[in-house]
Parts: sequence; structure tokens; C-alpha cells
Amino acid sequence: MSDFFANFTARNPEWLTEAGPFSDVALSTRARLVRNLPDFPFPHHASDVELETILADMSRRLSRLPAFSDGWDVGFADLEAVQRRALQEKLLASFRLVSRPTSRGLLLSRDLSRAAMINEEDHLRLHAFRPGFDPQGTLASIMALDEELEQEVESAFSPEWGYLTASPTNLGTGLRLSALLHLPGLVLVGEIEKVLNALRQLQFSVRGLFGEGSAVRGALFQISNLITLGRDEAEITDDFQVHLGKIITYERSARDQLYGRDHLGIEDMVHRSWAVLANARVITAQEAFDCLSNIRLGVSLGLLPAVEPGRLNQLTVQQQTAHLELEVGRALSGRDKGASRAALLREFFAA
Amino acid sequence: MSDFFANFTARNPEWLTEAGPFSDVALSTRARLVRNLPDFPFPHHASDVELETILADMSRRLSRLPAFSDGWDVGFADLEAVQRRALQEKLLASFRLVSRPTSRGLLLSRDLSRAAMINEEDHLRLHAFRPGFDPQGTLASIMALDEELEQEVESAFSPEWGYLTASPTNLGTGLRLSALLHLPGLVLVGEIEKVLNALRQLQFSVRGLFGEGSAVRGALFQISNLITLGRDEAEITDDFQVHLGKIITYERSARDQLYGRDHLGIEDMVHRSWAVLANARVITAQEAFDCLSNIRLGVSLGLLPAVEPGRLNQLTVQQQTAHLELEVGRALSGRDKGASRAALLREFFAA
Repeated sequence: MSDFFANFTARNPEWLTEAGPFSDVALSTRARLVRNLPDFPFPHHASDVELETILADMSRRLSRLPAFSDGWDVGFADLEAVQRRALQEKLLASFRLVSRPTSRGLLLSRDLSRAAMINEEDHLRLHAFRPGFDPQGTLASIMALDEELEQEVESAFSPEWGYLTASPTNLGTGLRLSALLHLPGLVLVGEIEKVLNALRQLQFSVRGLFGEGSAVRGALFQISNLITLGRDEAEITDDFQVHLGKIITYERSARDQLYGRDHLGIEDMVHRSWAVLANARVITAQEAFDCLSNIRLGVSLGLLPAVEPGRLNQLTVQQQTAHLELEVGRALSGRDKGASRAALLREFFAA
Repeated sequence: MSDFFANFTARNPEWLTEAGPFSDVALSTRARLVRNLPDFPFPHHASDVELETILADMSRRLSRLPAFSDGWDVGFADLEAVQRRALQEKLLASFRLVSRPTSRGLLLSRDLSRAAMINEEDHLRLHAFRPGFDPQGTLASIMALDEELEQEVESAFSPEWGYLTASPTNLGTGLRLSALLHLPGLVLVGEIEKVLNALRQLQFSVRGLFGEGSAVRGALFQISNLITLGRDEAEITDDFQVHLGKIITYERSARDQLYGRDHLGIEDMVHRSWAVLANARVITAQEAFDCLSNIRLGVSLGLLPAVEPGRLNQLTVQQQTAHLELEVGRALSGRDKGASRAALLREFFAA
């Protein structure tokens, strides 16, 4: 694992480096499957011994899958806290996993496009990531992983309820699709609440960058289906494709409307944001998220020099504290943190 | 007069273009003398006819003085409002004169280093300006003008009270010295109120850029002696030199202290301010004053490329509304004003 963290900042999943479909609005699409073992209690009811047994058994078996055989078994409980937080900042590990690491596991494919969390809310949570907005491609990726899994692991399944899960909200397919969308246009024209409420009524969940309960930063929204039961994977994916496709269209038209209504105000905002990142000597994560968001908007409107979306994605992730600390090799106090962040951003934007 | 306003923005008194003593802290020094005619009531008691008589008579006689003979008789009441406001922005006319222009007059020397206001609070107020902090030079300039005046005008004088003035606070010499000081160091270390209170106890008045009742903008303070009676001109000037000299010393040491205490915070502030002026597409006067103030501080600390103080002085004046309106040749609405201001500042700082 020392290999893995030695070069962690530059070790990026494809969605952080490549453009995908609708990259002007969508950073990534994620698919998640929930699976549990029939012979053990769910993690929140399992004893320490049972959790350790599950972890050892699952780690061994998952390592044999083609997806993970040349990848990384992250040995989650043995990591330093900063390493766990950095994995969360890259969206490779959940908050739940990071905050309770004992007897938890994380396996990653070599290219970081697939992940398996052991003893999170369920015995097993599989993730697949794709750049941009790509529900079909992401579904194909997670289903291929699920097929590999079926060769090694028999999951708890009921003919009536489908896959059994620790929380009833995940019963059935256990499939959750999420898209990480950048919606500054809807925020700035004041339509965001209306759009998000409509999504909630359609049984989608809307959360911040780091999932449940996390604050929205830099106009980045995680949008996921809530319904996993009573429809098959293809129906869930079609539904997701249709409704989130509409949000992307709304966002694009909000940006045009915004620029038509107040081009000077938008130009002012995006140029100031670039100037701040090119010149600040100290900056908070919140301000950096916001400036990067404004710059992403400015690039998409053609008001700023072209920057690949991948570069903005990476800076959005790398400016976070655990990434900064791994990069400098030590814990950072408040002021040092802001200074390291500013230096990272200046290096790119002042160039 | 069309000549005078045709090129108004570039027509600057020496203190707006040249460095003077202590230019790192002091923008300009001004001396003012108050004189009244013995045979007329003070302006606030004079009839319209009397005011017109005084204006015509004084304009004629002042025009014969060497100081004004090749200068400008601004014909104050006939100016457009924007022209009067622009004269105030350049500190060549007072708020009182600008707000009640009827039967008021303003004469300026060709180089704008001397001015005479007619029918302001008194029949005659003479001003002399010098760059930087230069009480002796400014006193010499105003006394030379007073000598010229004595050849043409007999002023109301009492052996007991000295020169008679509309307000008793100006009795005696009628001499007021003012320095326009930039005190961001004292503001940022939180010492400014203590210092200003000490000055007030020593009978100095402290005001904003545009005198009585005006807000402090961009850490620019007008500091003047209040006592005009019971001391001669030399004593007043020596006293002013000593006490304001101390303020300049305090300000310099506050800047050093500030930088020593938090060099990162100061660097951050001054670089951000430059970045804002180099990139904003819309900006308010207040933000421009503040950014120019921070840049002036950054230049004095050697943190930014050298900019002549004169250039910063000029931009501080030119970014104000009447100057912007004269420059574009029309009245500016809110948004246009902010955009014109931003364009002016960008032209210099983005170069």
C-alpha cells in the first residue's frame, strides 16, 4: 500500500482526469450495488469477531475478482486518519467508513473506476464510476462487476424482496445511481430549489458533494435515485437518464439566461474568481470551492481561457485538507492549510 | 473655461502627480487662509445683490494677482453640476461651494497649486497645496499668495482678534493646515482610534477625504489644526509639523509591526486587491478606494511592483463618479458607473 499513497495526489480515477458526456454540467456518474452474506448478521448487528471474519473472508474473495486482482486492498483500519480522509475526498470511501474504520475494508481496481467497501452499512457495497453523465456505461460497469462477484460470493436474496439489505430503502436491486452535477446556473437564477423539490417528488435524493448530510459546496450536487425495489436495473437506469437529462438541459438554459440577463455581472464574477485563485496567499476550502465553481461556469460560457474539465475536477479534490497534508507530508494548522491551498491553486491559475 | 474642462482628467495639481516628503504616508499638505472684506456682511448674512457685488469685485481683483493672472476663473455658478462635483473630487472646491453654487466663485492658478474660493463660508478662502508632508513649503506658498492679495485687497482685521472670520473658530491667523494621510497600518493593527483621539485632544480635527462629515474611505484621513488664534503662523506650522510627524512615524512602525505579525495575511490582502482591480468588470467606488489603499500599502512594503504614488493618487481621484462621467461625456447609471470605473482601473492594473 505504500506505493498507493506515495503518489496519491496524482492517482486519479478516470472521472477526475477525462471528459465524459455532458461534462459541461456533469462531473461523474456512480453506480452502487448493495450485497450481503446470508450467514452473518448485518454489520450494525454483528459482533466484533463476526465483523473481522466477514472482512477477512470478503477481502480474500474480492481480491480474486478480475476487477480487483491487480488493484489495491487498502487495509482500511491500518491506514493513517489522513489517508482515510483523503480517500473520502476522492469520493472512493464513504463518511461512514472513514469515521468507523475498525473491521472495515476497501478494495479498489487499479484504475480506481471500481471500489468495494466491506462492512459499511452492508457487508458489501460495490461502486463503479464513469466520467460525465453516463448512466448506461456506469450500469454496464457495475453489472460486469456484479457478475464477477457472483462467481465468488453467494448473496442474500429473497424471491419476494430481491437482494436483502441492512436498510429497507435499498431492498430489491440494491442499485443506486448517482450523478455529481454542477448547477451554478440554476443556483444563480434562483431556480435551484424548485428543481430540487421536483426531483425529490420524483423520489430522487439530493445531497452535497460528500453525500448524506454534507453541505453543498461550489454548486456541486449529488443526485441519486431512492427507489431500488419493484423495478429492474434497466428501468431504474432509464428513469435516471430521462430525469437527470432534463436537469442538465435546465442548467444549460439557466446559464444562457443568466448571461443574457447580466453578462457584465457574470463576467465580473468569473474573472474575479480566477484572479483570486491566481493571487490569494491564503484561502479557505469554501472560497476555493466557490471560485472553482465560478471558473467552471466561466469556461463553459467561453468567458475564460479553456481549461479541461479534468483539471478543474482534480483541483477541486486536491485543494482539500487531507490531500494537501499528504502532499506536504505533515498535518497542517489553520493558517498553513490556507497557505498550502493557495499555493496549489496559484501554481495552476497564475501560470 | 471650455479649455479647462476639455482635458480635465489629465489636468492635475502637482500633489496628484509628484512624490513629496514622506509620500509613503502623506498624499498632500494644504494651507488655508480665511479673509473677509471690511465693508460687507459675511456671506451667510449678505443679500443676493451683495453676494453678486462681492463675487464680481473679488473675481476682478484676484485675476490681477500673479498667482491667478495666467490661471482659471472657473465661473462657478455657470458650470454643469458634474463639473462642480469633479472639482470637489480633485479637492479644489469644497462641498459647501459645490452644493450652493449661486454667487460663488473659484479661481485656480495655472498649475492648480493655489485656489481662491469666493463667498464660501467667508468672502475669501485661499488654498495652497503641496505634495507629500510639507508644512513649511505649504506655509510659504500660502503666505506668498497672501502678500499678493494684500496689494489688491484690504481685509477685515482687528488688533485684538486678528483677521475677522464668519466662524469664530477661524479668528486670528485664519490659518488652517491640513495633511491628507494614508493610515492603513494604524487601522489594521487597531490603533487608529487611540491615535485619532490623542490628536483631537491636541486640538486637531480628523475628517474623511472630503472634509467635515465625510466618511473615511480607503484609510485616507484629513488632519487639520483647529487653533488659529493666539499663535502666529510659524508656531501653528511648527506644532503641526511636530505632531503630524509623530503620526507618520507611528504609521510606519504599525506597517512594520503588521507585516512582522502576519506577513501572509498582508501579502494575501495586497495581492488580492491588485487582482480585483486588474480583473473586475464592475466595481463600486468604496471597493476601489479600499483596493487602492491596500495596493498603496503593498507598494510601500515592497510586496508589489513599484507604482509611483502619483499614479495611485490620480487613480484614486479619477475613479470617482464625476471624473468618470466627464471622461465618457455623459451621466452614468449605477451599472455603467461600476463598469466604467472597472475599465479605468483594469487599464492600469492589468497592463
